Amino acid sequence: MKFTEIKLFAPATIANIACGFDVMGCCLESVGDTMVIRKTDDKGIRIKAITGGSLPFEPEKNVAGVAIMAMLSDLKREPDFGFELEINKKIKPGSGIGSSAASAAGAVFGANELMGRPYNRHELVKFAAEGERAACGSPIADNVAPALLGGFTLVQSADPIKILELPSISGLYATVIHPQIEIKTSLSRDILPQQVALKDAVKQWANVGALVHALHENDSALFAESLQDHIVEPHRSKLIPRFDEVKKKAIEAGALGGGISGSGPSIFTFSKTLQIAEKVANTIEKIYDETTIPFHLYVSRINETGVKILSIK
Amino acid sequence: MKFTEIKLFAPATIANIACGFDVMGCCLESVGDTMVIRKTDDKGIRIKAITGGSLPFEPEKNVAGVAIMAMLSDLKREPDFGFELEINKKIKPGSGIGSSAASAAGAVFGANELMGRPYNRHELVKFAAEGERAACGSPIADNVAPALLGGFTLVQSADPIKILELPSISGLYATVIHPQIEIKTSLSRDILPQQVALKDAVKQWANVGALVHALHENDSALFAESLQDHIVEPHRSKLIPRFDEVKKKAIEAGALGGGISGSGPSIFTFSKTLQIAEKVANTIEKIYDETTIPFHLYVSRINETGVKILSIK
Repeated sequence: MKFTEIKLFAPATIANIACGFDVMGCCLESVGDTMVIRKTDDKGIRIKAITGGSLPFEPEKNVAGVAIMAMLSDLKREPDFGFELEINKKIKPGSGIGSSAASAAGAVFGANELMGRPYNRHELVKFAAEGERAACGSPIADNVAPALLGGFTLVQSADPIKILELPSISGLYATVIHPQIEIKTSLSRDILPQQVALKDAVKQWANVGALVHALHENDSALFAESLQDHIVEPHRSKLIPRFDEVKKKAIEAGALGGGISGSGPSIFTFSKTLQIAEKVANTIEKIYDETTIPFHLYVSRINETGVKILSIK
Repeated sequence: MKFTEIKLFAPATIANIACGFDVMGCCLESVGDTMVIRKTDDKGIRIKAITGGSLPFEPEKNVAGVAIMAMLSDLKREPDFGFELEINKKIKPGSGIGSSAASAAGAVFGANELMGRPYNRHELVKFAAEGERAACGSPIADNVAPALLGGFTLVQSADPIKILELPSISGLYATVIHPQIEIKTSLSRDILPQQVALKDAVKQWANVGALVHALHENDSALFAESLQDHIVEPHRSKLIPRFDEVKKKAIEAGALGGGISGSGPSIFTFSKTLQIAEKVANTIEKIYDETTIPFHLYVSRINETGVKILSIK
C-alpha cells in the first residue's frame, strides 16, 4: 500500500540532562508539534503552512526542509515525487525543549514513511541532526535522538553520530517550565567555561555512570542522586530568573531533581508519579507568578517511542 | 560457631579503567595475595610475617593494620581479643594493580569474619579505604571497592564513599603486564593536567555512560568502543615504555581495548575469551622481550566476588 499523506506528533525533548551535558536527553509525551507531510507530483520540498511560530518558508532555511534534503541527498535514487509540509508549532523556538529538533525529526520521519521507509529510526538521526545545523550552526544530535527514538538517549559519539537507547525509570514524569525570556545563543555559549577542573570532571562522569546504572536498575533514588551538574549549571543558571529557588522548592515538593533543559531558559524536573509532578508544577507556578515573566508550564510522561503517527492515508 | 583463624585470597584489581579515571575498577581472579588472620588473646594488632615484599610491620604504618584499626574504632564495643596477621604478597607494591588495596581489603574482610561479621562488604569499603590512606595519602576507594565487592565497580561518590556494583561482560579475561620500573607517585600525579578542555570532558563522560550501558547489555563491541581515555592516558602513557605499541598490538591480536592500570606502570587489556587473552599475552611478551625491562605478565578472568575465603577454622 502506498501512502500519500501522514500526520504526526513531533515531540519536545529535554537535552543536557544534568551531568549528561551534551550527551543525554529524553523525550516528552504530551508536549510537541503536529505536522502534516504530503506527497506532491512536483519534486522538491514546499512548506505550505506554518502556524504557531514565525519560521522561514524557504526549505533550505527551515530545519524541516534542510533535514529532508539531507536525507534525499543520501538516497541512491531520489523519489519521483516531492513533499509538502504543514507545521503546527506548539513548542516555542528558543525554549530549550527541542523546538527545531521536533521539526527536523518529524520531517525526516514523515518523509521516510511516505517513501516506504528506506531508513530505520537510528539512521534518521543524522539527517535530523543536519536540520539542526540550520538552527544551531552544527549538526547536534542530543535533541533529535530522543525525538526520534523516544525514552532516554546517550550520544555516545557526536562525529560520527552514534546514539545509545537507554531504559527509563518506570512511570517517570517531567515538569518543565519555559519562562518566556530570550537568552541569546551566543551568550549561553560564551558563558560556558572552555576548561574545567579535572576533579569536577571526575565527579561529573561518576554521576553519568551512576545515572546510566540507575536507569538500567530502575532505581529512582540513585537517579535522583546522580542528577547533578557541577560544570555547566553553575554558569548557565545565572541567566534564568529564580532558577535556584525553582530547583530547590521542586525537590522539596518531591521532585527527584532537575536542571536546565538544552541551553535554557526552560527548567526541567523529574518526578516519580503524576501526582508529584503536578505538585511540583504548582510549586513552580507560584514562584513564577511572583515575577512579571510570562511562562508555559508542562507536565508530561516520558515518551518511550519518539515521533508518533497520528494518521496516515 | 566461633572461628579463630581465616586464610584468604586478596585479589589484585585494575583501577582507572580507561574513561572511568578515578571511578571505575574491576577485580582479578587469579592474581592476588594470600593472608592469614588469627585471633589472639592479647588485644591489638600484630603483623607476624610478611613474605614477598618489604613492608612495615608496625600496624599503624601498614595498610592492613590501619584498615583494621579504622574498623575497630567504628565499632561501638571493641572485641575482647586481638588480631595476628601473616601477609604473603604476590602483588608487587607500586605495580598499579592494587597491592596496598589487596592488603587493606583482605585485612578488614578477615577481621570482620572473625568478629562474627558486624559489617557487610559495602560497609567494609570505607575502612579499607582508610588503609589506602597509609599507602597513598588519601582514602581512595577505586581499588578497595572491586577488591571487596568483585566484578566492576563505580565510585559514585568519593566523599562520602558510595560504591555501585556493575554487571560484567560475561566470560571476560584481562591480560596485564607489570613492567618492573618505578614511577614516582609524585611524578605520576604531577603529570596530570589540573584543567581539561570541556569538549574532551564531554567525550569522556559519553564514554563512561557507554561503558556502563555496555556492561548492562553485555555488549562487548560497545564495551570495546567505550574503552577510551582522552584525558589521562595521553599524559601518563609517556611514563610507560612501549605503551602505545603494547596497546595497539594487543588490539590487533584481538583485545577489546586497554589502558593504564591505576597510576601505572601496569598496562591492562580485556579480551572476550581465554584464548584471545593468551594470544594478547604472547604479543605483549614479545614486545617487552625486546627491552631490558623485567616484567610480570598475568592472564586472569574477572573475579565476580572479591576477597575469597580459602579456609576458616
